[in-house]
Amino acid sequence: MKDELTEFYNIFTDTKKDIESFMAMLDPVINHANDDHERLYYHHIYEEEEQRLSRLAEMIPLIETFQAGKGGDFVPSNNTFNRLLQELNLEKFGLHNFVEHLDLALFQFKDAERQAKLSEMRSANHKSYQFVKEKLAGINARFDTGYTDPHAHHDEHGDHLDHQAHAAPAAKAPIQKTKRSFTVGSLISK
Amino acid sequence: MKDELTEFYNIFTDTKKDIESFMAMLDPVINHANDDHERLYYHHIYEEEEQRLSRLAEMIPLIETFQAGKGGDFVPSNNTFNRLLQELNLEKFGLHNFVEHLDLALFQFKDAERQAKLSEMRSANHKSYQFVKEKLAGINARFDTGYTDPHAHHDEHGDHLDHQAHAAPAAKAPIQKTKRSFTVGSLISK
Repeated sequence: MKDELTEFYNIFTDTKKDIESFMAMLDPVINHANDDHERLYYHHIYEEEEQRLSRLAEMIPLIETFQAGKGGDFVPSNNTFNRLLQELNLEKFGLHNFVEHLDLALFQFKDAERQAKLSEMRSANHKSYQFVKEKLAGINARFDTGYTDPHAHHDEHGDHLDHQAHAAPAAKAPIQKTKRSFTVGSLISK
Repeated sequence: MKDELTEFYNIFTDTKKDIESFMAMLDPVINHANDDHERLYYHHIYEEEEQRLSRLAEMIPLIETFQAGKGGDFVPSNNTFNRLLQELNLEKFGLHNFVEHLDLALFQFKDAERQAKLSEMRSANHKSYQFVKEKLAGINARFDTGYTDPHAHHDEHGDHLDHQAHAAPAAKAPIQKTKRSFTVGSLISK
């Protein structure tokens, strides 16, 4: 568990920096939005990441407490350890949702500078998500937490995030080929 | 606290039904998406609500435990009570984000049937969000939980959700007037 804590600490401090970069990228887009719909769309994603940032600001010190040997034993009867596990399980989804926010942004911000930064963050956070997911599956089983993954049924045929257009840009068609953008109003008649 | 628990129980069982209705509405839209971007957009919102659903499936029985007098005392030294407070603080944001998902859907699904259903859910869940937010502010202060609301700075001039186009349809311009939809690709050159 000690080794995993070191990895978790690195992952969550790194993703915290990436959230800040992403929020800084969204900020001018929100301020210069063309209409209420566009503003709501980006502001909504901004706020979800802001919520995650404030949760990480509590969880990272909790990881540090355990790293310093001050969190108590790694046993289910230790409430602080249970809280850590609950928060880690929640932040696994935080990473998952962040990767999707980055994927959505990759469809929208097409200039080279933002594409490069978004792709870099997408790749790093997808890797982090896979790591946390795998490690937590083991930890949850080991400590018999009774945790059920609400996404498990999506993953029966592999992680669906792997199938996104931007999952592995080097091995797939270039991003530029994804020319077609959907209009938000295009589902009106459905 | 007993009276508030009854209200929380009603609010979260009601919103649980609304999540299910909303997911059922998104399902065919995902299955008939025109391209990867559209599919990702709706699938992403679907999954966020699915995550919330699975959290509520744990929190509602926890509220019931306290209603039945089996959760222990309402004091910060009771870890089960602390867990309840943490989960309630998280689900306040769940409600907030759901209202925004409904607002985004109101911009997109323009047929009368879905507009009516979405507006009804938007109104009910916005009211629930306001109630939970107000009650939790009092509870957090009363129990000195040291909880800081990451959205507080947005609310300095009132809750920003009140300013959305669909917040109070009766008092504002009819929804049909919001004709302009933004194209997802429209920010490419920004």
